[in-house]
Amino acid sequence: MKKFDSAAFKLGVLGGGQLGKMLIQSAMDFGIELHVLDPDPNASCSNYCKHFSVGSFQDYDSVYQFGKNMDVVTIEIENVNVAALKQLATEGVAVYPQPEIIELIQDKGLQKQFFVQNAIPTAPFVFIHQKEELEKYTDSFPAIQKLRKAGYDGKGVFKINSAEDIAKGFSEPSILEERIDFEKELAVIVARNAKGDITAYDVVEMEFSPTLNLVELLFSPAKITPEQEQNAKEIAMRVMDKLQMVGLLAVEMFLTKSGEILVNELAPRPHNSGHHTIEACVTSQYEQHLRAILNLPLGDTKLLQAAVMINILGDVGYTGPAKYIGLDAITADSQVHVHLYSKAITKPHRKMGHVTILDSELEKAIDKAKFVQSKLKIQA
Amino acid sequence: MKKFDSAAFKLGVLGGGQLGKMLIQSAMDFGIELHVLDPDPNASCSNYCKHFSVGSFQDYDSVYQFGKNMDVVTIEIENVNVAALKQLATEGVAVYPQPEIIELIQDKGLQKQFFVQNAIPTAPFVFIHQKEELEKYTDSFPAIQKLRKAGYDGKGVFKINSAEDIAKGFSEPSILEERIDFEKELAVIVARNAKGDITAYDVVEMEFSPTLNLVELLFSPAKITPEQEQNAKEIAMRVMDKLQMVGLLAVEMFLTKSGEILVNELAPRPHNSGHHTIEACVTSQYEQHLRAILNLPLGDTKLLQAAVMINILGDVGYTGPAKYIGLDAITADSQVHVHLYSKAITKPHRKMGHVTILDSELEKAIDKAKFVQSKLKIQA
Repeated sequence: MKKFDSAAFKLGVLGGGQLGKMLIQSAMDFGIELHVLDPDPNASCSNYCKHFSVGSFQDYDSVYQFGKNMDVVTIEIENVNVAALKQLATEGVAVYPQPEIIELIQDKGLQKQFFVQNAIPTAPFVFIHQKEELEKYTDSFPAIQKLRKAGYDGKGVFKINSAEDIAKGFSEPSILEERIDFEKELAVIVARNAKGDITAYDVVEMEFSPTLNLVELLFSPAKITPEQEQNAKEIAMRVMDKLQMVGLLAVEMFLTKSGEILVNELAPRPHNSGHHTIEACVTSQYEQHLRAILNLPLGDTKLLQAAVMINILGDVGYTGPAKYIGLDAITADSQVHVHLYSKAITKPHRKMGHVTILDSELEKAIDKAKFVQSKLKIQA
Repeated sequence: MKKFDSAAFKLGVLGGGQLGKMLIQSAMDFGIELHVLDPDPNASCSNYCKHFSVGSFQDYDSVYQFGKNMDVVTIEIENVNVAALKQLATEGVAVYPQPEIIELIQDKGLQKQFFVQNAIPTAPFVFIHQKEELEKYTDSFPAIQKLRKAGYDGKGVFKINSAEDIAKGFSEPSILEERIDFEKELAVIVARNAKGDITAYDVVEMEFSPTLNLVELLFSPAKITPEQEQNAKEIAMRVMDKLQMVGLLAVEMFLTKSGEILVNELAPRPHNSGHHTIEACVTSQYEQHLRAILNLPLGDTKLLQAAVMINILGDVGYTGPAKYIGLDAITADSQVHVHLYSKAITKPHRKMGHVTILDSELEKAIDKAKFVQSKLKIQA
């Protein structure tokens, strides 16, 4: 890989959403030449990147043409054309995370096999091809059927409560997973550079909105025992070591009621569960991703204060040019850090931004987060 | 002024250098629509701003045309066309800092008069129009002659040691200032919003390079007494209150050998002496400037750790495409925060970036800064 040692060093990013936007903010510190590919001409990144290309990151030619003059190509979304990335890698472009790993993670079936092969604890599962096969597993209901590919943000996931639900199941390559009666959902973000250095951030605990399958409130430190914290971090670092990936990896986990940690799924990129690291840690997840893919030393992951992150979603009942309500009230506390995603149009449940709240005490930060949730509204 | 409540809110920035670039990084958090005007098509900001206009910020028409569709116009350099800004203000564009204040600060003579009229301590001075007038003041030599306008980064400043230097003096409107035998150079950054709230950051102490008249090393907290710290902050806040300015103001000061604080000059914008606030303070100077001009509540200025900032200048003997030497060595410590300004071409003494070093102990941070200075080189 070409060494990063000038402003002419070219970093290509597939995907131009809010994760890309925050990656740009961090990359600006390194003064590198940024290129972004996204099909939406009004994507968040389009406002902040001279070399913004409109095109599909799922299309072979678009990705290949975009990437061939880059020094490093990375992603902010995993749903990209892997064949083009493989070709770029054979032609000498550094592609991080490596195309084979993106390919593995794109397929929930391969992910599960990888966990089993590498003794990574995960919920038991079977492969399903036709929904009729589900009838063999009625004893294990309730269970979760997940499409192997293209499931994202809750799409492609179906909860089967009883035999009556089988008719609504998927007849595409999928997995049927035992439904874990979990205590908590956790995530650990790990990073690895080409030298093989690995770091882990502290565990974050996620509270999901039961209706939207989106993280509603995330906090760190997690309310778990020191042993559970240690165990979660070790598992995440083991996943990273076994993958031999270069870049940033979010490892989503369940803590079961019996105290066991099970890996749920992986995201090989900056992640919603790491937004708080921008203000709460010495090194943000975005800078860490850049350090990893530029083969610089990895940064300190220390959590400096308790942090809570909330997603700011478009209010139900409003579609159109977005109006921010309540910014004055919430910015009065400067430990409340607002990130708005430069999206002109709101619609119900659209991710329009996030807010990170810091405090020396977690409970106070959670209280402030609830105040922010009650005040900051996105309407039209 | 139109209320900031949507992604369609338009902020125009006159000047597209590194201060503008760091302002963009902060403005991205608020997701506002940014526009930048700079004569250099390759200015730092050009890489990170969709609405980057090439044009002169000193030209009436360029500034007027650029500003007339903005909601707020601000500056990252004070050498701008004030007449156009005045016209924009009369047409309802919010111009912050106010054009009259930029005009006052552009003229070192008016600045000095303002200090005298408002009982702000400053070095004694007289007005000079022709160099022959200098002969009247030989008793007060050594003294400093400064052009009233267009002096910047040491240009337009002439040290008169003895009567023999008079022939080399300026015959343009200027001031002759008593040469202060100062102990230290200090700066205080203050901010004020339209509601009239004022905040001050902790005092920073500057070590200047004797040859280049550029800050070589800056640190906060300053090595001064609590009374001097308090006095410096009060004077800076008084300047801001008397100006009734909206925005961010850097107040440069001398601490004399007798312990007196004298105001040297003002910069009505984010400033070199506030770079460290990005990592060292709850609210960075860039966010504070935005909070002020968007009429949001001002943020907490608390210094969280001791901070040292060093400017990274192009090495002597190298002109051409810039190469960064030593990035690996210095980024091994993630309390060393690198900011490279995306400038493709280096030349001797060109400001190519800065580095902020944090530590719980100031002396350790200074030691690390000296290590960074010895390792990080910009060559071609």
